[in-house]
Amino acid sequence: MTQFMNHRENIVTEAIDGLLMASGGKLVRLDGYPHIRVVMRADWDKSRVAIVSGGGSGHEPAHAGFVGPGMLTAAVCGDVFASPSVDAVLAGILAVTGPSGCLLIVKNYTGDRLNFGLAAERARAYGLKVNIVIVDDDIALPDLPQARGLAGTLFVHKVAGHFAEQGQDLARVTKAAEQVVAATKSIGMSLDTCTVPGSVKENRIAAGKAELGLGIHGEPGVEQIDFVSAEQAMTAVTQKLAGMTDAQSHVVLLNNLGAASVLEMSVLCYELLRSPLGKNCKYIIGPAAMMTSLDMRGFSVSVLPLTLDIEDALCTDTPLAAWPGCVAITPFTPIALPDGLTPIKPVPSSHAATGDFLIKCCNVIIGFETDLNLLDAKSGDGDTGSTLAGAARALIGAIDHLPLADHTQLYRAIGLELSQTMGGSSGVLLAIFFAAAGDAASSGLTMQGALLAGLARMQQIGGAKLGDRTMIDALQPALESLDQGLDVAAYSARKGADHTATILRANAGRAAYVSSDKLFGHKDPGAEAVARLFEALTQG
Amino acid sequence: MTQFMNHRENIVTEAIDGLLMASGGKLVRLDGYPHIRVVMRADWDKSRVAIVSGGGSGHEPAHAGFVGPGMLTAAVCGDVFASPSVDAVLAGILAVTGPSGCLLIVKNYTGDRLNFGLAAERARAYGLKVNIVIVDDDIALPDLPQARGLAGTLFVHKVAGHFAEQGQDLARVTKAAEQVVAATKSIGMSLDTCTVPGSVKENRIAAGKAELGLGIHGEPGVEQIDFVSAEQAMTAVTQKLAGMTDAQSHVVLLNNLGAASVLEMSVLCYELLRSPLGKNCKYIIGPAAMMTSLDMRGFSVSVLPLTLDIEDALCTDTPLAAWPGCVAITPFTPIALPDGLTPIKPVPSSHAATGDFLIKCCNVIIGFETDLNLLDAKSGDGDTGSTLAGAARALIGAIDHLPLADHTQLYRAIGLELSQTMGGSSGVLLAIFFAAAGDAASSGLTMQGALLAGLARMQQIGGAKLGDRTMIDALQPALESLDQGLDVAAYSARKGADHTATILRANAGRAAYVSSDKLFGHKDPGAEAVARLFEALTQG
Repeated sequence: MTQFMNHRENIVTEAIDGLLMASGGKLVRLDGYPHIRVVMRADWDKSRVAIVSGGGSGHEPAHAGFVGPGMLTAAVCGDVFASPSVDAVLAGILAVTGPSGCLLIVKNYTGDRLNFGLAAERARAYGLKVNIVIVDDDIALPDLPQARGLAGTLFVHKVAGHFAEQGQDLARVTKAAEQVVAATKSIGMSLDTCTVPGSVKENRIAAGKAELGLGIHGEPGVEQIDFVSAEQAMTAVTQKLAGMTDAQSHVVLLNNLGAASVLEMSVLCYELLRSPLGKNCKYIIGPAAMMTSLDMRGFSVSVLPLTLDIEDALCTDTPLAAWPGCVAITPFTPIALPDGLTPIKPVPSSHAATGDFLIKCCNVIIGFETDLNLLDAKSGDGDTGSTLAGAARALIGAIDHLPLADHTQLYRAIGLELSQTMGGSSGVLLAIFFAAAGDAASSGLTMQGALLAGLARMQQIGGAKLGDRTMIDALQPALESLDQGLDVAAYSARKGADHTATILRANAGRAAYVSSDKLFGHKDPGAEAVARLFEALTQG
Repeated sequence: MTQFMNHRENIVTEAIDGLLMASGGKLVRLDGYPHIRVVMRADWDKSRVAIVSGGGSGHEPAHAGFVGPGMLTAAVCGDVFASPSVDAVLAGILAVTGPSGCLLIVKNYTGDRLNFGLAAERARAYGLKVNIVIVDDDIALPDLPQARGLAGTLFVHKVAGHFAEQGQDLARVTKAAEQVVAATKSIGMSLDTCTVPGSVKENRIAAGKAELGLGIHGEPGVEQIDFVSAEQAMTAVTQKLAGMTDAQSHVVLLNNLGAASVLEMSVLCYELLRSPLGKNCKYIIGPAAMMTSLDMRGFSVSVLPLTLDIEDALCTDTPLAAWPGCVAITPFTPIALPDGLTPIKPVPSSHAATGDFLIKCCNVIIGFETDLNLLDAKSGDGDTGSTLAGAARALIGAIDHLPLADHTQLYRAIGLELSQTMGGSSGVLLAIFFAAAGDAASSGLTMQGALLAGLARMQQIGGAKLGDRTMIDALQPALESLDQGLDVAAYSARKGADHTATILRANAGRAAYVSSDKLFGHKDPGAEAVARLFEALTQG
């Protein structure tokens, strides 16, 4: 497996330009390629506190995807998994910082700390007010004083960004960010490693194993555990966090580390919200890919106790597509199933002529069961005759329950009977044919008109046209000429059925999967059935 | 590698419940588990045309993630890659359809067509107005009349949903949907197959190969091609679409098939928007995972010519997190780098005493180069002495360019010099120490106060505390006692440095990676350097 990239050294600049072109003019960047990769809000006027974050790339949408109103003012992007240079960070600070100052939000990695830290000093030498917060939300290594920065960083972005957007001063914005940093806890789990661009993938995690407590740079997790199920995985994660949370109400963030499918993330969300930790949470952010580790098939959970300020800041809308919103966790009560799932039972009525006609048709169909099976065996699985005969026998058995005196209801009832007894695509299609004909009859059409309406609906749903080597090839000409009498209809049906032996390419139905040399010279059994039925009726 | 799931048979119901709990009360479902899985808008009052879609699961967020204002009224979810039953579809229709009727949006797969088709007939028997559109946007198999429904379905959801939300009647909504269906074209490419839950992954695509023209159910693509780069991949895809688009302005949708990383999707977006096709597009939707094929590492591109109606419908905001918005494609002009990236050159000034003091310090440091290297070799790579001596020599060489008469500027200038000549973490940290001390001095602090401010900043950025076995262990006590005279400071530094020989666990710096038996009895070379420097200064 390879990756969608061009040259390794351009991956970040190309990704940034892709992001910018699709930003609707809301993002710009500094003209500092290849080394200075700073993404900024296009509408920034330096009137408020600037919020700058960044670090190594490979964590998209973090951080450039979170540049916008109410979150980051600028993001400084390093190479994949490598800190940006001091010059790049300084360029970012200088480009966006006005008299209100700037807050740097830095994940706790040595390179980021040093480079952002020195850039801050150099910016201060220009008289700019620059504060730093260092995010260390990882709880995987409780004994290590230097905890890593993980997806909990998003809480800091959103809260600091909100206060800055509101026009609060640097001290207040910094204090809010520090409070969030102090209270945020995160931990991750993955079923596979990530593929670092240009490197061979390390296959460290065996099938059936998971790594718990991992960072976002492909480094090994603190422990490998057996992976049993989504429930057990989420339990392992939430138990690590449980000791860290008190009875207070929390917000939880469920982050996709890159390549867990959306379906899996929803299952994990289900397990998270029914865990004891989830029951202690008032809001959820995600599930979504926010702080990824390239293509890692994993997730992380971050929690933060709520205060009124934090709640307000997190819940305020931002127009950023990468921010999934902070959503109240709500139980739901399923809605009762609607009436009508049990089909309407028609009121039986008798009409001797109609009953006789129907039984005659059924007997004709039963009569050519063997012939049709033989014909079908040449291009299919040899059961068309039996399928139709089975339905015919069921219809005869149901004759006393049918509304024979009411054509509209009778069509519908036949359709229902076929859908319940015949099975397969053809059963559904014939059911649709009769049901739609019943609808049409109820609106006052002639029998021919009603049957043609049924045909049209069957064709819409089934997708077969004239010439596609299906029963349509006999049924359509027969119905279209029905107003000229049964003889003409039967003649048309026969002509159409015979013609199917020359159609070497089936465009619909099962014969579409059969090679043309097996089709040549053999009529379509569905079309043949229609022709035989019409022919038998003329002999009545 | 395994998947985040529990039992295969519950994956869809659990995923739906996860989605609902995290929907903020905006979604509900019918009480029909396990077979009837219908997700609905919680606020639906049947006053307008209902829009119902669905099909097999495994395409998340489609379709349940698009239930909400301006898009779907309900989604009927089948098993993974399997159509929902007629009863499930009927339940969905009956639950949401009022007098304005209902439009079913069905992707062109036989099972979906038949089951949605028959459900529509049964709903019509209850007098409900139900229309169907069948989406067949795939152009991979131009000769096959039954083109598959792919991510272009999202265009139909959004346009029909918009017209319905506006209160248009069923005929108008259906017509708009049909226009979109007729004009939408899609094609996909993948570097790997997907993992169907409970099945063994088919490794069909060799490394270095890509499949072009694939569906969304893991079926093979129309052709395997060599994969060279993101550019070549996107060219292959857009060339297939190029013949299908005229000179008219288009909207393009860039869909993640599941497990391409966000970084890769941005690179693909870059390639898409600079392709001839991209230049013919006015808007882009995505890149985002909208119609996935579980965890397929691939993407698809869908295009639709714009009309005023379609443009309006697609661009209208919807609060759904899964909908990335329809964004104008805009060129951008990079912003010039800010002034100030070149550090401010201090104005040289002379001050004999300061110059002599500085040179004395440097010579002391040069003098213990060998001793310190030997000490460092016991617990590190043996270069601490040389690193410090090198910086000291550079400082002596720069002495004539330094602002010796201005303490504030001098601190900053030393910091700058160290950051440019010393390298490594310690160079950056000492640069931060002196720069921050310079800042503090400019605000009128005493020398001790300024140096302590520098220390505090260095600790914030470096993360080392007293007792972490770093130079801090000598520097902090020395600076804190500096007001009691140089002798006391030197004594304190020596005491601190000697103590590091007993610290068996380094919590910061490089020694954190060295085992404690290698640390015991050896002083930290950085702390030793500080102690020796202070001791030398007391000797006149």
